[in-house]
Amino acid sequence: MEPIKKYRYKLTIEYDGSSYHGFQMQNENHIKTVEGQLAKAFKNFTQNDVEIFASGRTDSGVHAIAQTIHLDLNREFSSHQIIMGINFYLKDEEIAVIDAEIIDENFNARFDAKMRHYRYAILNRKAPAIIDKNRVWHVGGKKLDILAMQKASEYLLGEHDFSAFRDAECQASSPIRTIKNIKIFSNDEEKIFVEVSAKSFLHHMVRNIVGTLVWVGKNKISIDEIKNILESKDRSKSGPNAPSCGLYFLKTDY
Amino acid sequence: MEPIKKYRYKLTIEYDGSSYHGFQMQNENHIKTVEGQLAKAFKNFTQNDVEIFASGRTDSGVHAIAQTIHLDLNREFSSHQIIMGINFYLKDEEIAVIDAEIIDENFNARFDAKMRHYRYAILNRKAPAIIDKNRVWHVGGKKLDILAMQKASEYLLGEHDFSAFRDAECQASSPIRTIKNIKIFSNDEEKIFVEVSAKSFLHHMVRNIVGTLVWVGKNKISIDEIKNILESKDRSKSGPNAPSCGLYFLKTDY
Repeated sequence: MEPIKKYRYKLTIEYDGSSYHGFQMQNENHIKTVEGQLAKAFKNFTQNDVEIFASGRTDSGVHAIAQTIHLDLNREFSSHQIIMGINFYLKDEEIAVIDAEIIDENFNARFDAKMRHYRYAILNRKAPAIIDKNRVWHVGGKKLDILAMQKASEYLLGEHDFSAFRDAECQASSPIRTIKNIKIFSNDEEKIFVEVSAKSFLHHMVRNIVGTLVWVGKNKISIDEIKNILESKDRSKSGPNAPSCGLYFLKTDY
Repeated sequence: MEPIKKYRYKLTIEYDGSSYHGFQMQNENHIKTVEGQLAKAFKNFTQNDVEIFASGRTDSGVHAIAQTIHLDLNREFSSHQIIMGINFYLKDEEIAVIDAEIIDENFNARFDAKMRHYRYAILNRKAPAIIDKNRVWHVGGKKLDILAMQKASEYLLGEHDFSAFRDAECQASSPIRTIKNIKIFSNDEEKIFVEVSAKSFLHHMVRNIVGTLVWVGKNKISIDEIKNILESKDRSKSGPNAPSCGLYFLKTDY
């Protein structure tokens, strides 16, 4: 028997993390995950079990604007067929395939990633989020000092031991990471965005950084204190883990 | 007995229209409206019945980034007290008071409006909206021709008889309105915004304009055809009423 020919697909996925217990499939079948619901949709579409490989696994509540995955199917489909077909089976989910293409069979969504981009959204006002409910971290009280946050963030640029911003459950072999870019900006008086780019991140790294930058924005710690926190390599020195609902996996560069 | 002193408040309100049968209170108590839920919150906060006057009444499903209302209370509260107090009673609603101030007793949220600003959001891609579900009109198929839409929109600027874009149930005494500004722009490849400013609008006017501009964007009608539609004063000539979920009451200038 001839081996079945495989076609490798690169897909771009959007999801609202509020409805899922993270990206990664769980052993318990009743726990709804992004990967699990995607796998079901592909099973319905192709009648085959598919294995899904993602650029990054996001935590419960974290959203994706453009998560990249790859998978193999034993038939050739057009981009249009995949998008319309899979989205039909995802119609009751908060997940959609926004782009699809056949790609070189060696392409790997996780290992070929050159740069990953995250965005964190903060709503800084007295009133809670309404239109952006579950889409931002509501930080009440005084106006955050964005300029101070920007200055503090510069200490994090480049290669460092990010142990101070690493979750205790992080399984990475090394705490060394390289932040290529960190940008803090506001599109109006109330919403503040923190965008961070690196080849890879430690577990909870972006959210721990944001929690600490908000301390700076509240003048709870000085701008320079972030340097001390980084150098301490001590998670107990840094700020709170910012809520997952404010975090967006923006995209991956290959 | 001395008359009770009244304090007039100007409030800015945000709401997610998806959860309400429009702004205006209905006679049937079980129909949830923005005004009805606001009135309940004020009743809980002040123990008094309050009458609410809005800059504009939005339809079912239409959102507000900053709707202005005025009302009278017989006690003086700080902005902070109103925001925190009313939002506490609105905590299970998709409504929030984002700003509050005591204002001249002659201020009228409806009649003093100098300019009203609306934004309409379109998601133009194959995949349905996920993060922006209920917040955009999903227009699938081909890329809309934004340049054509921009050129067509220029015919609508200024004072015209907008009967062609007026709902049959519109109660305004005159179909003459003046569009001061209309701006069509895209922040990325997929999302297109139409912003329209006028002192006042006819019923469904913005949504009918957007539906017709999307015809232009799809090259279903020519750029110049919009001039003929406007001059026909005939609602049956213009495009579909764009869905309410894409419409946002942006703000009112006083």
